[in-house]
Amino acid sequence: MGQRLTEPVITDLMARALADPAMLSLAAGFTDNTQLPKSLVGQAVAGLTAPESDPETLQYGTNAGRTGLREAVCRIVSRHEGEDASRITPEQVFLAQGSQQALYLSMQVLCEPGDIILVEEPTYFVFMEMLQGLGLEARSIPYSPDTGIDFGKLEQLFLEMQSTGEWARVRAVYIEGYFSNPSSRSQPASAKSGLANFLRERNAILPIIEDAAYRDLYFEKPWSAMSTLSMPEFDGFPVLYLGTFDKPFASGLKSGFGICNHQEWRDNMLFAKGHQDFGSSNFVQALIERVVSTDAYDAHVAAVRAHYQGKAFQVQAILEAEGLADVGWQWEPPSGGLYFWLKGPEGFDTSIGSDFCEACLANKVLYVPGDLCLAGGQPRNCVRLSYGVLLGAKLDEAVRRFVRTATAG
Amino acid sequence: MGQRLTEPVITDLMARALADPAMLSLAAGFTDNTQLPKSLVGQAVAGLTAPESDPETLQYGTNAGRTGLREAVCRIVSRHEGEDASRITPEQVFLAQGSQQALYLSMQVLCEPGDIILVEEPTYFVFMEMLQGLGLEARSIPYSPDTGIDFGKLEQLFLEMQSTGEWARVRAVYIEGYFSNPSSRSQPASAKSGLANFLRERNAILPIIEDAAYRDLYFEKPWSAMSTLSMPEFDGFPVLYLGTFDKPFASGLKSGFGICNHQEWRDNMLFAKGHQDFGSSNFVQALIERVVSTDAYDAHVAAVRAHYQGKAFQVQAILEAEGLADVGWQWEPPSGGLYFWLKGPEGFDTSIGSDFCEACLANKVLYVPGDLCLAGGQPRNCVRLSYGVLLGAKLDEAVRRFVRTATAG
Repeated sequence: MGQRLTEPVITDLMARALADPAMLSLAAGFTDNTQLPKSLVGQAVAGLTAPESDPETLQYGTNAGRTGLREAVCRIVSRHEGEDASRITPEQVFLAQGSQQALYLSMQVLCEPGDIILVEEPTYFVFMEMLQGLGLEARSIPYSPDTGIDFGKLEQLFLEMQSTGEWARVRAVYIEGYFSNPSSRSQPASAKSGLANFLRERNAILPIIEDAAYRDLYFEKPWSAMSTLSMPEFDGFPVLYLGTFDKPFASGLKSGFGICNHQEWRDNMLFAKGHQDFGSSNFVQALIERVVSTDAYDAHVAAVRAHYQGKAFQVQAILEAEGLADVGWQWEPPSGGLYFWLKGPEGFDTSIGSDFCEACLANKVLYVPGDLCLAGGQPRNCVRLSYGVLLGAKLDEAVRRFVRTATAG
Repeated sequence: MGQRLTEPVITDLMARALADPAMLSLAAGFTDNTQLPKSLVGQAVAGLTAPESDPETLQYGTNAGRTGLREAVCRIVSRHEGEDASRITPEQVFLAQGSQQALYLSMQVLCEPGDIILVEEPTYFVFMEMLQGLGLEARSIPYSPDTGIDFGKLEQLFLEMQSTGEWARVRAVYIEGYFSNPSSRSQPASAKSGLANFLRERNAILPIIEDAAYRDLYFEKPWSAMSTLSMPEFDGFPVLYLGTFDKPFASGLKSGFGICNHQEWRDNMLFAKGHQDFGSSNFVQALIERVVSTDAYDAHVAAVRAHYQGKAFQVQAILEAEGLADVGWQWEPPSGGLYFWLKGPEGFDTSIGSDFCEACLANKVLYVPGDLCLAGGQPRNCVRLSYGVLLGAKLDEAVRRFVRTATAG
């Protein structure tokens, strides 16, 4: 509590994009307006508001959300290969204002100012802003390109944090197992089980938050690793799995969910939610419940996947054709999600106010500086590009502007 | 932050009502399902999802909410007699998950645990639960049946709180100016201006939160007093006015708003909202924006008013016919809102676990114990009855069960 004076960076970036019509934004994590399910939503609401329908959908619902939708959430998550449906039950599910609210609630009830959360390297920058607003700190779990997590460096971090007393202030671990924002990386099963073993060996049975917002936005195939909810290695760990209907369906509905296998943690989140809003929109939940009960939902998500895959190919083609690699930039093409994570040459600076950032603004293209996604604010030579919003020639042009700015120096 | 282990009482009451189909609930502040605007919502969504419509309504919106709806909110509030439209501008407005979220945000950014909020006697019990969850305390502004506020007793309270050091911890004043939950009382203009003068004379230019959730649910005529936003006596006071579309339109949409004339307070609430959900459902806002732009909205609210007025008459008739006054109970019939506030005989106990409460449960009728609505938990002989949900013979029967339980002793 108390005054929070940090303006979220995302708000500022969105405002800049809106203020200048010539600006092309590769920054915002918005989805593509052409893929929004107007007719599915229209049909669902027509059903909900038909003369013979029960008006209860326009009445207050419950704090945790509609039973039918909580059951549907379990079906949607459990059908991923490897998931253990017996561990994913409707009582564990609660609906929220996007998965963002569930994430906020999780932090509110676990942490006191000064506490520390372990995050990936890089991690979701809006989460880091939230931590800052709540007076919390983040530390990066060291990344390894080969194994997902560099356990040698993690051991070093652990020893350092233990010696400074910081380890005792670690309250939770936040990972994005599937097509992460911003890196589009997924965690190998071995990295997740390794993490569980690492923590257990150090008697650190910490709450695990697995944010799976982009899990359904895979391209060729789903990511193979099961979630931490189902992995036996995480037995005994409190796990909160976060999902959303915003990214695969309609961000304008602002509906997400948490699945939490730890009753006290879940109860506390729901008590706090009871104070914040005593339940998310019952009508929005009823609408989604109706849509996900049909095959049309799966067909819609499949089409969305193919669409983003096409746009990712398009971005990759321009990055290659324009010669970004020739000036020392590195990246892996995504296999799902909405983002490219690019690493500039050693010592290059992409942060807000840097020459490169100013040059991109002058050339009318926006990106998210990578340092915002890194718990230590280092290195400063990375960039997140989103292909969510822009289409066709505008997407081409935006990526071209970016690469030409990068290659001009 | 930290653990919150209080289960909201409203959750428990709702659960009891749902669990026993024979239980008739005069407890929940739900609205009447027969008055929910199915066809208006259906038409609005048909327009939003028509082939030629812009799909942006299904995309993320902004943190503060849609410009068109913020403008409409200003029109809806400003058209009340006496309001000063020049003081009520779209930049001051933000949309929220019901006015509840705006209220929560206001407390989060103003207060630290141990702080004190001045509230009415009685006040909104869900707000008191929220305060408890945030580690805050409430003190009642003494009520006067003649003048709304008993300024003599308020002076005593001030002196007491000053002597104990508590006055320095008062962070805000929360009032419900119009057809309050739970009392259905409205504040006379003289009470509000008197409060402003009282505070100003004591150099206490405290933030004022005026919750106007029931303002549009008047029966014969709107309540005459303008809001604290427009009253010159409140010049210099930070004011947050809260309104909602839940009560007059559809609680299932879960949409409310704040209007805040103090930039720093408003900015801080929006920063916190940026972390909680970075904006309420854009689609729900677009839907409401479309509805309120038509005359049909006003016609709907007018019909809702007439409906609740009829139900209030119905409850009053049964309270009288069954002889509740004969056994020493007192009340004023409401002239708006959703509630009767009844005062039992001196020494009577209506609290949870009391003989009377248990007898009502045995007789299958639920009410809200009045002590939950009183900052000091005293007196314990009051009751809130809601005529929101029940209809016709069931409403009759519920009130009859209540009165017969009260008169049986």
